[in-house]
Amino acid sequence: MQKKNEVHKIAVIGGGSWATALVKILSEGNSKINWWLKDKEDVTYIRDYGRNPNYLTDVTLNLKKVRPTQFLNKAIEESTIIIFVVPAAFIGDVIERIPKGLLDNKIIVSAVKGMIPQDNLLVTDLVQKIHKVPSKNITVIAGPCHAEEVALEKRSYLTIAGESIQNATIVSELLTCRYVKASIVEDLYGVEYSAVMKNVIAIACGIARGLNYGDNFQAVMVSNAMQEIRRFVDAMNHKDRDWNSSAYLGDLLVTSYSPYSRNRTLGNMIGRGYSVKSAQVEMNMIAEGYYAVKCIHEINKQLKVSMPITKAVYNILYEKISPSVELRILEDSMN
Amino acid sequence: MQKKNEVHKIAVIGGGSWATALVKILSEGNSKINWWLKDKEDVTYIRDYGRNPNYLTDVTLNLKKVRPTQFLNKAIEESTIIIFVVPAAFIGDVIERIPKGLLDNKIIVSAVKGMIPQDNLLVTDLVQKIHKVPSKNITVIAGPCHAEEVALEKRSYLTIAGESIQNATIVSELLTCRYVKASIVEDLYGVEYSAVMKNVIAIACGIARGLNYGDNFQAVMVSNAMQEIRRFVDAMNHKDRDWNSSAYLGDLLVTSYSPYSRNRTLGNMIGRGYSVKSAQVEMNMIAEGYYAVKCIHEINKQLKVSMPITKAVYNILYEKISPSVELRILEDSMN
Repeated sequence: MQKKNEVHKIAVIGGGSWATALVKILSEGNSKINWWLKDKEDVTYIRDYGRNPNYLTDVTLNLKKVRPTQFLNKAIEESTIIIFVVPAAFIGDVIERIPKGLLDNKIIVSAVKGMIPQDNLLVTDLVQKIHKVPSKNITVIAGPCHAEEVALEKRSYLTIAGESIQNATIVSELLTCRYVKASIVEDLYGVEYSAVMKNVIAIACGIARGLNYGDNFQAVMVSNAMQEIRRFVDAMNHKDRDWNSSAYLGDLLVTSYSPYSRNRTLGNMIGRGYSVKSAQVEMNMIAEGYYAVKCIHEINKQLKVSMPITKAVYNILYEKISPSVELRILEDSMN
Repeated sequence: MQKKNEVHKIAVIGGGSWATALVKILSEGNSKINWWLKDKEDVTYIRDYGRNPNYLTDVTLNLKKVRPTQFLNKAIEESTIIIFVVPAAFIGDVIERIPKGLLDNKIIVSAVKGMIPQDNLLVTDLVQKIHKVPSKNITVIAGPCHAEEVALEKRSYLTIAGESIQNATIVSELLTCRYVKASIVEDLYGVEYSAVMKNVIAIACGIARGLNYGDNFQAVMVSNAMQEIRRFVDAMNHKDRDWNSSAYLGDLLVTSYSPYSRNRTLGNMIGRGYSVKSAQVEMNMIAEGYYAVKCIHEINKQLKVSMPITKAVYNILYEKISPSVELRILEDSMN
């Protein structure tokens, strides 16, 4: 479908911090980037100043390679690789707006680290369902990677997951640059589910921190979380996986331990006594884990996997059970 | 050998912060603790004030249960459970001083998280070699647990490893209290080697931090480290292990991520340009990883397991190769 070393035309769909970081990484190479942002003002601002006015505002972009646009279909039409990087809460609308056939014969990449609320679907699933994209044409970009450190050009690593090694290789080559190394793993679903679940765990870690639990507790919680993720993903899609590789463990660590993690920050505020609503208003950013925990909780009604940490976060966020009560229950269940 | 629920007489051999934390935990129960410290002055101070003058100085101990002594043989003689918790660099001398036969029919517990320099032996090995203690009488206390958080009575978890579930259970019951939960794992060697190696990794994490690498990089380093530990331990002693449990992953996390970790602090100072010598003088504490990396490096001359992180730390600490050069090599080897 794609040839190596050719100049790729890439659509980046989304205007948040991770989208901005990906545009920065991609523009280190020779690609042409059609960057779709929802708001016309932002498009105009970026055209005028070469910077995103809202996220990673210090990052200067090369406008010879990066073309911002508010026209979604045009951005997709003119590209062969389409990277979706919109918060999960809005991605459903975006994908539904795209005319049938427009995604045919393109490489579809999801950099969304969440699930579609209500539908409880991964982006990968939704694209297959609505646009009949064959799964071999889909890849997923996973971490461990905070956008903020990409902005600073700190050494980072990405994992590209996909059923087609050929397509994953194309995407990984586009995302490899001076400060980013991208590797490949043949596990679309495992990587995508792990990326979703890590945000739930990060909320739990933040809550524990907010309640003044220490480093000893967090180490045990993250170890138990790895086992919880493993149980869930294996039940959804059994496969031989190296759970200690960066795509799974690394992604969990960067989210659970870094102050850059907005999910951890949300949890921290809730642990310190903020209501969920006021924490979200204060943060002014979307914590994917907030939606993800509901999706995972609902999927697990069928699977019935033991998921004490996910359950605790769900109860705190949706059932208004006191964080300290839930954490005391967790204390006893972990080891 | 021991009966459940009886009042145990326990010798704690060592006067550092981890020894003090263990004495505190043990004295929450009904045991009598014969606490051996090297220096007479410290023994006298603790008898007078109920506090260790050098470590965890805020912790007040119950002198009805805790009897400090400078007489090693007497402490051992009067106890049925002997916990060694002396820095690895000095534990060899202590164990050699003990008269033959004195450790017979006792439960021997190692809380030392290092290897005997020169000999490249685990404490477990040394006790077997010198005192012919059968391996079923030996258990190991592993983390994830920083002494400083035990002092604050923050919720913590311990892992007790041993070949005899019965003996491990006795030790785990003694160490379970209001703020500590102790679990059992039937893997003496794996837990002990992992506990040793985590300190080497923590030095690497500290060096990376000192050189201004970020959270993205550390997440990848810790994931790669888990794989490195797994390769080494499996080569030394093959066994089915859940590498994501607290005894292995948790112990690594608490050391790699916590500012309480003295190994991480040593690495951080080296990354920021301190010489190894001046960092050690400045810290005034022993970083076990400094000795451990040499032992592991030497053992691995035979095993020839791929250990890029351990090799980098060894080269920086013992071959005086520049930290930034070694980290650049690591950057490329990891994914």
